Amino acid sequence: MHRVDPPASHVDLLARPLFAHLATVAGNGSPRVNPMWFIWDGDRGLLKMSHTTLRRTYRNLQLDGRVALSITDPDNQYRYLQLRGFVEHVDSDPTGAFHQSLRLRYGLRSAEVEDRDVRIIISVRPTAWKARDA
Amino acid sequence: MHRVDPPASHVDLLARPLFAHLATVAGNGSPRVNPMWFIWDGDRGLLKMSHTTLRRTYRNLQLDGRVALSITDPDNQYRYLQLRGFVEHVDSDPTGAFHQSLRLRYGLRSAEVEDRDVRIIISVRPTAWKARDA
Repeated sequence: MHRVDPPASHVDLLARPLFAHLATVAGNGSPRVNPMWFIWDGDRGLLKMSHTTLRRTYRNLQLDGRVALSITDPDNQYRYLQLRGFVEHVDSDPTGAFHQSLRLRYGLRSAEVEDRDVRIIISVRPTAWKARDA
Repeated sequence: MHRVDPPASHVDLLARPLFAHLATVAGNGSPRVNPMWFIWDGDRGLLKMSHTTLRRTYRNLQLDGRVALSITDPDNQYRYLQLRGFVEHVDSDPTGAFHQSLRLRYGLRSAEVEDRDVRIIISVRPTAWKARDA
């Protein structure tokens, strides 16, 4: 798989615990967008999110794994990063460890992941990036 | 047209000059998402955005006018508003007056709208809202 790396000028937006707005396509072909936690795995070049098998977005992604995300800098909303990509793989998170790591990344306290039975890790492979400055 | 009004608990997110993340579907059926200025016209129940006829998002919307938007509260990113809807109409903005009004709403200085020849006003009719709190 050819890796398409994020622009160095905007990698801080991937490192910081910001919300990414995840666009997907529903079964009827209409768009959806949801704010999401994420973590950027720079070693593998994958953007990972926590989800559950019960949610509609996951069902939509099973039908069509293509996604787009936008992340704005809260300190300067004219500075933002967009990516397009696809769900490369989905892994279960049976202990909730991945979800817990996201909770901590986003400044929440550690807590039992009660829905760990249905927790999954969605790994997105970027195919294109767009970076904008003010 | 049946009006679907935004939840009163979250209308402040429409009143404030926040960025909305606009999801659209490209010609090949894959999703796109872009941060956008907007203004909520509560009298008509329309969300209005400024765009140009030259941009890809506009061409995508000509093929499929279905959209989704998400707006998070910068003071509490766990509080957010989503809407789904469709482009009800597109109007030209030959003097750039609408674009100028958005510039001012978003705290920028008044300036000549040099691309007024291609400026358009996209009016979105909401069909569903979702509001979340922390």
